Parts: sequence; structure tokens; C-alpha cells
Amino acid sequence: MAVHRLCIVGLGMMGGAIGMAARRTGAAMRVIGVVHNQNSIQIARQKGAVDDATVDLRTGVQDADLVVLCVPVRTILEAAATLIPACHEDTVITDIGSTKALIVHEAEALISRMKAKVHFIGSHPITGSEKKGIDAAEQVQLVGAPCVITPTPHTDNEAYRTVEEFWKALGLRTLRLAPDEHDAVLARSSHLPHLLAAALVSMQTPRSLDISGPGLRDMTRLAAGDPAMWSDIAAQNAPELSKALKELGQELLRLANEVEVLGMQGTPGAEAARERIFRFLVDARQRHEDRFLRPAKPVAPPAEASEPGTAVEDPPQGQ
Amino acid sequence: MAVHRLCIVGLGMMGGAIGMAARRTGAAMRVIGVVHNQNSIQIARQKGAVDDATVDLRTGVQDADLVVLCVPVRTILEAAATLIPACHEDTVITDIGSTKALIVHEAEALISRMKAKVHFIGSHPITGSEKKGIDAAEQVQLVGAPCVITPTPHTDNEAYRTVEEFWKALGLRTLRLAPDEHDAVLARSSHLPHLLAAALVSMQTPRSLDISGPGLRDMTRLAAGDPAMWSDIAAQNAPELSKALKELGQELLRLANEVEVLGMQGTPGAEAARERIFRFLVDARQRHEDRFLRPAKPVAPPAEASEPGTAVEDPPQGQ
Repeated sequence: MAVHRLCIVGLGMMGGAIGMAARRTGAAMRVIGVVHNQNSIQIARQKGAVDDATVDLRTGVQDADLVVLCVPVRTILEAAATLIPACHEDTVITDIGSTKALIVHEAEALISRMKAKVHFIGSHPITGSEKKGIDAAEQVQLVGAPCVITPTPHTDNEAYRTVEEFWKALGLRTLRLAPDEHDAVLARSSHLPHLLAAALVSMQTPRSLDISGPGLRDMTRLAAGDPAMWSDIAAQNAPELSKALKELGQELLRLANEVEVLGMQGTPGAEAARERIFRFLVDARQRHEDRFLRPAKPVAPPAEASEPGTAVEDPPQGQ
Repeated sequence: MAVHRLCIVGLGMMGGAIGMAARRTGAAMRVIGVVHNQNSIQIARQKGAVDDATVDLRTGVQDADLVVLCVPVRTILEAAATLIPACHEDTVITDIGSTKALIVHEAEALISRMKAKVHFIGSHPITGSEKKGIDAAEQVQLVGAPCVITPTPHTDNEAYRTVEEFWKALGLRTLRLAPDEHDAVLARSSHLPHLLAAALVSMQTPRSLDISGPGLRDMTRLAAGDPAMWSDIAAQNAPELSKALKELGQELLRLANEVEVLGMQGTPGAEAARERIFRFLVDARQRHEDRFLRPAKPVAPPAEASEPGTAVEDPPQGQ
């Protein structure tokens, strides 16, 4: 069933993309945006991201069935605390933050302390780019992107279904993970790569930066991300991120030794090292190819303005 | 002055791209390709990469003013040894291998041993992709790409100018570095990123690979490169590559500690760590932006079929 009234808090790149897709697919009958200033109201309307928008958080969430928090991770809980008292009973609230354990547990605690009759379920659609702002919204590829939903033992089933159906109606491939599991997985696949891109560009000399090609450019693209946002994400997922950094750091030291041996050309050690490095590269290529170069898993795109939640095949979950 | 007769040995992605550009810009009056088999002759002609092609290396280089070796680094010296006796006096030979010190020094030694009256000067146009084959040639961006030329104390000035003018006529931005310096720079900006992409994809779990977005995809793109070719490059540049791997590995271990402290939220240590990580990310973003997001340095594109070597401004060198 389509959401009657969807409220999107924060109309940056992701909030804008979600608003546009919700209106285009009919996943929501009416989309209300909450923005920073009067100017942004006009822009959000012109972009087709909302039916209407307001600068007042409490006004925005009034009568909403579903609220999607598209603000930086640092301010999600603050926004939740402000808007929860203004929600009607059974409003479902989700967010799109890149970390989940802290946010989900604190939000549940908040609702319990406030004795509010609303539901909070964490989400994380994994798409977008290092860009910011609603102007980048149209480039966001939602269809086919993974979206992790992170229920807890306290999660209401019907509320979960509302969130799941919403993302599916937008064409995302939903998966279910515990908040802690989400953070462990994303430390590896997303948070580590961001710090790695920064470390890689930082270790370049002026000359090596100048004499570089498309490879270095692509491998350091994530370094263009927002420093404050990524500092916050690192803080919220510190133990898992630290573990992943250590693992990769040690692997690079191992490779450094391997390459050193490889350089002793003509020795039997060098021959063996070459064989191991060759194997390592073959395996890596295979893993990359299997994930990124094969035809995508079959996820039907959302039908234009059709019954949402039915146009999309139930994807295999929890892989 | 345009090259009268250019011979390109190896018509893969790069050889194909160079042939097409040489014909399009008029940088060479006649382009002869040397390919593996009869089939490829037809394909190379159809693609517009050559005027004519042959499977015989010695026939191909006959009467060539300039020979460009576009074969894998492992086979460059072997090809040079075969073709040198078939070249006429003063033929200039260059290559496009990703390592330079070993190749250039061995090629010079070879010419000296053979008492041949030809010139070998190493080149490295830094562009292309992880793809292979002439079908990928059209996507190669030559205009504006850096091209390192690596003369030695033995290099003939006129031969150097021939190589330099050729690359400039194709629109590349030429730079001059000693072969050893080239290898030290490229270890950092290119060879390290290739092994890093492989290490990053290798440390993913099936789940983290599945739950990943465009960031991980782009950061592991180089893992699709040819394993044999990259094993050879690693072997030929082992000391510098090993040094770069060690440096980045140690930096990641340092970041792991920093993030661990960052996670001790509410402590003064965590506050200080956040400030340092924030600064680190700000600096990295700046370096990335300065190199990759600012308008490219002004390099005039080669005029269509005009006098080659004059259409391109002399760029600042050795930066």
C-alpha cells in the first residue's frame, strides 16, 4: 500500500532523490519536505522532490504516515527528539544514516522514555556519491541499489513492512540485518574505503599527483566527501572501522614483504612470490568481476505510478 | 615535423588508440601495425588504427622513422632485440611500458652490444583503463594525459625531440624524468593503487561485497587489470612499490589507532582525535580537488591534420 503522507526531513542529494522517486513511482500520495530555509522550499518544489515543503519540523511531520530522516548522522537523534512529539500515533520513522547501531538503539530508548506511540526503524540505502545538495539528486541511482533495514527485537512487524515496501516501491533491493551487523559490514565496504581514499591521496607527492591517471582519480574520488560527516561516521562506527583499517594495514605490510622478495629476480623465492602475487591478483579480479561486472541481479524496476510494493520481486534476503 | 613512417608494435587498447590518434592528427604520414595474427590485420584496418599491418615484426619496422612498442612490459626487451637489426639507421624506438628503469637501461645495453645505429628512449603515456584489446581503444583519453619521457645521459637530443613531438602532436602533456625517478613516482600514483584495489576487494566478505555501493566499485575497478601484466610491473618496480606499500600500510595502522581513540566518546582524547581526523579529511579533500576537480591545465588540443608538433603549447615540464 502506498504511503498517504510521506515526510522527508532534509532535502539534500539523498532526500531530494528519495522525494523525486516517491512522487514519480506513486510510492507516496503526498510528499512533504522539511528544509532549512524559505528559499529551499521553492527549489524543492521546482525540482519535483516534494508536493510541498516547510521549514518547521513539527508542521512537516503532522499527519505523516512515514517520516524519512535524510539529515547527517550527527543530527538524526536531535531531529528525532524534536519531531516525535508532533507525530500522530503509529507514525513510522526511518532514517538513511550510514551507521545504525548507535542511532537505532538511542532512537528506541528515546521513544521509550517519551512513551511515544511511534515506531523507529533504521534504514541505509547504499547509493549516492560524494556530492551534496539537491542539484546532485537526479544522478542518484536508487533502482537496484541495496538498502539495509535494521530491525531489533523491539521492532513492530507492520512498521517494518511499511519501511520495506516503501524502499521496494522505489526500486531498491532490501536486506535485513541487525544494526550491529550492518555496522560491521559497512565498516568494510564503505567506511574503510572513505578513509583509504583520503590516505591514498595524502601520501602522494606533488609530482606523483601530477603524473597520475584515471586510476588514482577514481580511487581517491571518495576523498571529496564531507569531512565533518565522515568524522561523525567514523566516530559512530569506531570499533569496527578501526578493526577494518588494521586488517588492511597489515595486509599491505604483508604485500610489501612479498613484493620485496619478488624483486630478488632470478631467485627461487622470487619465482614463488610471483606465483603467489599472480594468484592474489587473479582471485581479486574474479571477486571484482563477480560483484561488479556481471549483469546485476534481477530486480524489476518500479512500475510508473503502479501499485507500489507489488511491482518489485521479493529479493533474496540477508545474503 | 611529422613522422613519415610510424610502426606500432602491438595493437591492443593503447597501441590501437595511438594508431588512431596518429592518423587522425597527421602526426604520422603512414602508420604500420605489427599484430599477432592475420585476423587482427583486417580489424586494425577497419578500426582506422593503421594504414597497413603485418604479423612480421621485421617487415613492420622496415623504413620506420619511429617505432612505438605497445606490448606488455615483459616482452618489450624481447621485441626490441628482434626488431633492432631490421631498423634502418637513426630509427627512433620508444615504448609505453609502465616501468622504465629496467627497460631503458637494458635496451640501451642491447643497442650498445649490437652496435646498432638506432635510438631507444622510454615513454609512458599515463592513461587508458583496466580494459584490453583494440575494442577499448576509442575510450582512451590521450588529449591532456601526462606522458613521461625518460632520457638518460646517453640519449640523443634529436631522437628525444622526435619522441616528444610525437606525443605532443597527439595532445599529451609531456614531462621529462630520469627512468629511476619515473619508477619512484609511478609506484606511488599507479602501481600501489593497483595492488591496493586488489587488497581491498580481497578483504571483503561475501556480504560486504553484496552490500556495497558505487564507492567500493570505483575503488576496486583497477582489480580488473590483467594479473600477469601487473605481476610483471610489480617485479620490475619491486623496491619502490614495496616502499609505497609499507608507507600506506603503516599509515592505515596509525589511522586504526586514531579511530580507536575517536571511539572513546566523551573523553578529551576522543575530541582531539576527532579534530585530527577532521583535519586529515579536509587536507585530503583539498589535495584531491586541486588535482582532479579544478579545470585541467591549459593544454591545447591537437589541431585536426594540421602541422603536428606545433599545435601544442610547450607545457611546463618536470613538475
